[in-house]
Amino acid sequence: MDSIKVFSPGSITNLSCGYDILGLCLENRGDEIKVSKTSSKGIIISTNGGYNLTNNINENVAGIAAQAMLKEIDVNNGFRIEINKGIKPGSGIGSSAASSAGTVFAINQLLDSHFGQLDLIKFSMEGEKYVSGSYHADNVAPIILGGISLVRSTDKIDVVKLPSPKDLEVIIVRPNIEIKTSDSRKVVKKKVKIEKMVKQSANLGSFISSLYTGDFNLMSRSVIDEVVEPDRALLIPEFDKVKEISKKNGCIAVGISGSGPSIFSLSNNRISSTKILDSISNHYEKLGISYDGFISKINSQGIKILDTK
Amino acid sequence: MDSIKVFSPGSITNLSCGYDILGLCLENRGDEIKVSKTSSKGIIISTNGGYNLTNNINENVAGIAAQAMLKEIDVNNGFRIEINKGIKPGSGIGSSAASSAGTVFAINQLLDSHFGQLDLIKFSMEGEKYVSGSYHADNVAPIILGGISLVRSTDKIDVVKLPSPKDLEVIIVRPNIEIKTSDSRKVVKKKVKIEKMVKQSANLGSFISSLYTGDFNLMSRSVIDEVVEPDRALLIPEFDKVKEISKKNGCIAVGISGSGPSIFSLSNNRISSTKILDSISNHYEKLGISYDGFISKINSQGIKILDTK
Repeated sequence: MDSIKVFSPGSITNLSCGYDILGLCLENRGDEIKVSKTSSKGIIISTNGGYNLTNNINENVAGIAAQAMLKEIDVNNGFRIEINKGIKPGSGIGSSAASSAGTVFAINQLLDSHFGQLDLIKFSMEGEKYVSGSYHADNVAPIILGGISLVRSTDKIDVVKLPSPKDLEVIIVRPNIEIKTSDSRKVVKKKVKIEKMVKQSANLGSFISSLYTGDFNLMSRSVIDEVVEPDRALLIPEFDKVKEISKKNGCIAVGISGSGPSIFSLSNNRISSTKILDSISNHYEKLGISYDGFISKINSQGIKILDTK
Repeated sequence: MDSIKVFSPGSITNLSCGYDILGLCLENRGDEIKVSKTSSKGIIISTNGGYNLTNNINENVAGIAAQAMLKEIDVNNGFRIEINKGIKPGSGIGSSAASSAGTVFAINQLLDSHFGQLDLIKFSMEGEKYVSGSYHADNVAPIILGGISLVRSTDKIDVVKLPSPKDLEVIIVRPNIEIKTSDSRKVVKKKVKIEKMVKQSANLGSFISSLYTGDFNLMSRSVIDEVVEPDRALLIPEFDKVKEISKKNGCIAVGISGSGPSIFSLSNNRISSTKILDSISNHYEKLGISYDGFISKINSQGIKILDTK
């Protein structure tokens, strides 16, 4: 195999109750990444999609992740990475993760799957570290493993793939502003009251139980964030109103996707999902706020191979 | 039915990663509680078992829980509560919870099960509040529901019954000192660093996943407490050494039971359980520390009716 094209999807993290540890892989929205072997060693990156992204391999997350990977193996050729960005940077649905994870996944295919999934998560995290200032795998894990995942540890990578209840789907609405993950992390308080920790943990535990049992009522009571959301919500236009609209139209739960500004709602039927998306869209349109909105099933497979040569 | 005798078992809470929310019901050790209708209204308590417990209904947890219950129903008779304490107070395996939950469970039987399980948890919590200074249901929930439970909320009681993997059992060793829950709660830090909260939550989530999947390796990596244990361990004689012994002899995990001084180990086979118990016992004997130790399966039923008349 000399070249490969993959679809590397977006992802929602935190899911309100699992700050920095929960993540969910989306079907819709994602980067298309083509990686080809080159005869000369080294990495070349080109990006398109209309976003002003650097092609410097030491500043582009795909280049950073790829270099972390290639440090651990001797290869006699190089790689040309062509990224067609389908996710707007700073949108809160894992734009950087899609590029870094998609790239290392694709290169690994060209290396005859030399590395395992946990290795790919580790390499991708170098890209995440570069853009956010800290190691976290909550975006890269679900797009590499598919479905919903829980990152138990990033020191020695340990990730649990959780079940996705049948019919669960998400509605994503992104008001058209950019929030840098590194900025959004700054508003998170450094310390949490023990009582808040207890409440947040109880909700996380209940949410995980609901994934195994498919108890959507319990899920609805559990997807709550009293620790991070109150501060981050202030950065997102009309967040409280969108929350209210989403609940009124039958969502299971609603919260900030990753570090925002995207807002996710959970639903277990397409009729509600459509009503939720339409109602939020109407609201933003009335106020003249530009936005992007879509409905997505849970992507159980993760990164997909589109073509190989 | 004019009188009833129940066995109200001990319980382990926190299970390291679930401070104030996780609880597990024991088969062994428990209070025997007899409740009989009396013609005159009001409550009378008598206790035996060798512990110096008050029979004042406003100071004994069973009386406090029973009164909370009887406030919500008109009854023309009274109740005599005879408690044969089988759990040493201040031992960390839910002594007060066994008395309060067992008592309201028994009275409810005499009231033709007028109240539901969540009501019984609510009434029992009044006893817990009295002894510990705060509302928590992590001991009373698993002995009322049986098995392993997660308390999502104590404001409006919300409890999730979790599965117990086949073969899971516990080894309990209690060095013979008393730690009052209220004292043990004082050593818990009031604020937690966000990074610690993330780690602790990740472990809790992974533990809950392991209960559903029976993945004992994941359970072993998850039953860790970096928030409360470091401070509470100082109150328990030889805690670190007991931990080491338990691990060396094949436990899945080891931690402080409730607020201590009891130490629990998890195991999935009786041979390991026996080795763990014997080795810890030997260690305490060598040092001349008196202790109580036993092995228990998970009690999936909770409080048991022994006799009715």
